[in-house]
Amino acid sequence: MPLILYSDSSPNGFKITIALEELGLPYTLKHVQIDRGEHRQADFLKLNPHGRIPVLVDPESDITLFESAAILLYLAEKSARLLPDPPSERWAAITWLQFHAASMGPILGQRVHFELFAQQPCPEAIARYRRLSEELFSTLDQRLADRPWLAGSSYSIADIATFGWTHIARVIDFDFSQYRHLSAWHERVSQRPAVQRGIRLPAPATGP
Amino acid sequence: MPLILYSDSSPNGFKITIALEELGLPYTLKHVQIDRGEHRQADFLKLNPHGRIPVLVDPESDITLFESAAILLYLAEKSARLLPDPPSERWAAITWLQFHAASMGPILGQRVHFELFAQQPCPEAIARYRRLSEELFSTLDQRLADRPWLAGSSYSIADIATFGWTHIARVIDFDFSQYRHLSAWHERVSQRPAVQRGIRLPAPATGP
Ligand SMILES: N[C@@H](CCC(=O)N[C@@H](CS)C(=O)NCC(=O)O)C(=O)O
Ligand SMILES: N[C@@H](CCC(=O)N[C@@H](CS)C(=O)NCC(=O)O)C(=O)O
Repeated sequence: MPLILYSDSSPNGFKITIALEELGLPYTLKHVQIDRGEHRQADFLKLNPHGRIPVLVDPESDITLFESAAILLYLAEKSARLLPDPPSERWAAITWLQFHAASMGPILGQRVHFELFAQQPCPEAIARYRRLSEELFSTLDQRLADRPWLAGSSYSIADIATFGWTHIARVIDFDFSQYRHLSAWHERVSQRPAVQRGIRLPAPATGP
Repeated sequence: MPLILYSDSSPNGFKITIALEELGLPYTLKHVQIDRGEHRQADFLKLNPHGRIPVLVDPESDITLFESAAILLYLAEKSARLLPDPPSERWAAITWLQFHAASMGPILGQRVHFELFAQQPCPEAIARYRRLSEELFSTLDQRLADRPWLAGSSYSIADIATFGWTHIARVIDFDFSQYRHLSAWHERVSQRPAVQRGIRLPAPATGP
């Protein structure tokens, strides 16, 4: 029975379409349109009471998951891929997955809000989230200075999670081109065929 | 060889002291004093290039981790405890751990900044983070309406992670008393002896 993914064209959604395309797992994609408020409808809230995409349902195990990092860990465990075997690389992948999920994603999300959507301009918030996002880009740049992928020698769910957001950073002009290693890594990831497919599902991102 | 924990008296730090006390694993605690800038010193940045506590070093496996959720997953795997065995509870624990790490912790952290530390008052940011934190509290409240712990019937790293922040919410008066189930859960967690020890290490929290 195919997996069921509830998603929209957004950073956290692309992480999962990219992973599923990379793994070649059969799945049904349900487009939850945030701009129509479909993520706040009762049926969807039964899947994720927090009202956010992505959500993954595995009818085989009868498991429903939300939070993109939890879904990526699940897919890696289910497929025994995208998480390296040697303990030191495995835990590096999990550390950088969490760095993305808990430090990078939320800060870029706040930057999007204050730069692009806030009703009242708040210069302090804009400056704060720019400063914090430079710090995040610089941390990743340093990590990628002497290894091809975040975990080390293997492409993993840490790269997929991080790319979900660097892809959107490019679309909305949060510039990270001065970070040479991070930019080169971004190009490397973006050339993977599964990534090319994943960032078009359910539809390409267009910015605000 | 004991584990080495680098931490300070703060929400993300308490998660790990609580877990280590619960597990009874031997560890050495190194106090990294954020208010003295010790987390920005070269030696510490070698452990976590992002300059944040907590950091855990396991001399046995030669693994260094940062990001509290990654550390909790590591400790659960190392000890084979605090993460339930049945797949549906196990993935519920991981989902709620991630809900905490990626959705709740970062939003409460931003609320702390704008309510307690920002130089220029930004009413829009204050209103935003209050609204989002009510939504988080309410999501947890609903989850805890008919089960004792976040994963279901077993106490897990999801509870420990969440408590790290509800403990600080209490200290700094981010009121969640109207959320009955969440409040009852908070009392239940706070009565565990390991929690009582963990929230005093390296020192009790005092608020801003
Ligand atoms: N930490 C969550 C974040 C999920 C999230 O914020 N999803 C966005 C789309 S990228 C959403 O559903 N937004 C709708 C809303 O905030 O109302 C994850 O990693 O899955
Ligand atoms: N997502 C990280 C957050 C770590 C974090 O922000 N730690 C705080 C203390 S609770 C810190 O080190 N702050 C110092 C700073 O921001 O400069 C985690 O869960 O470990």
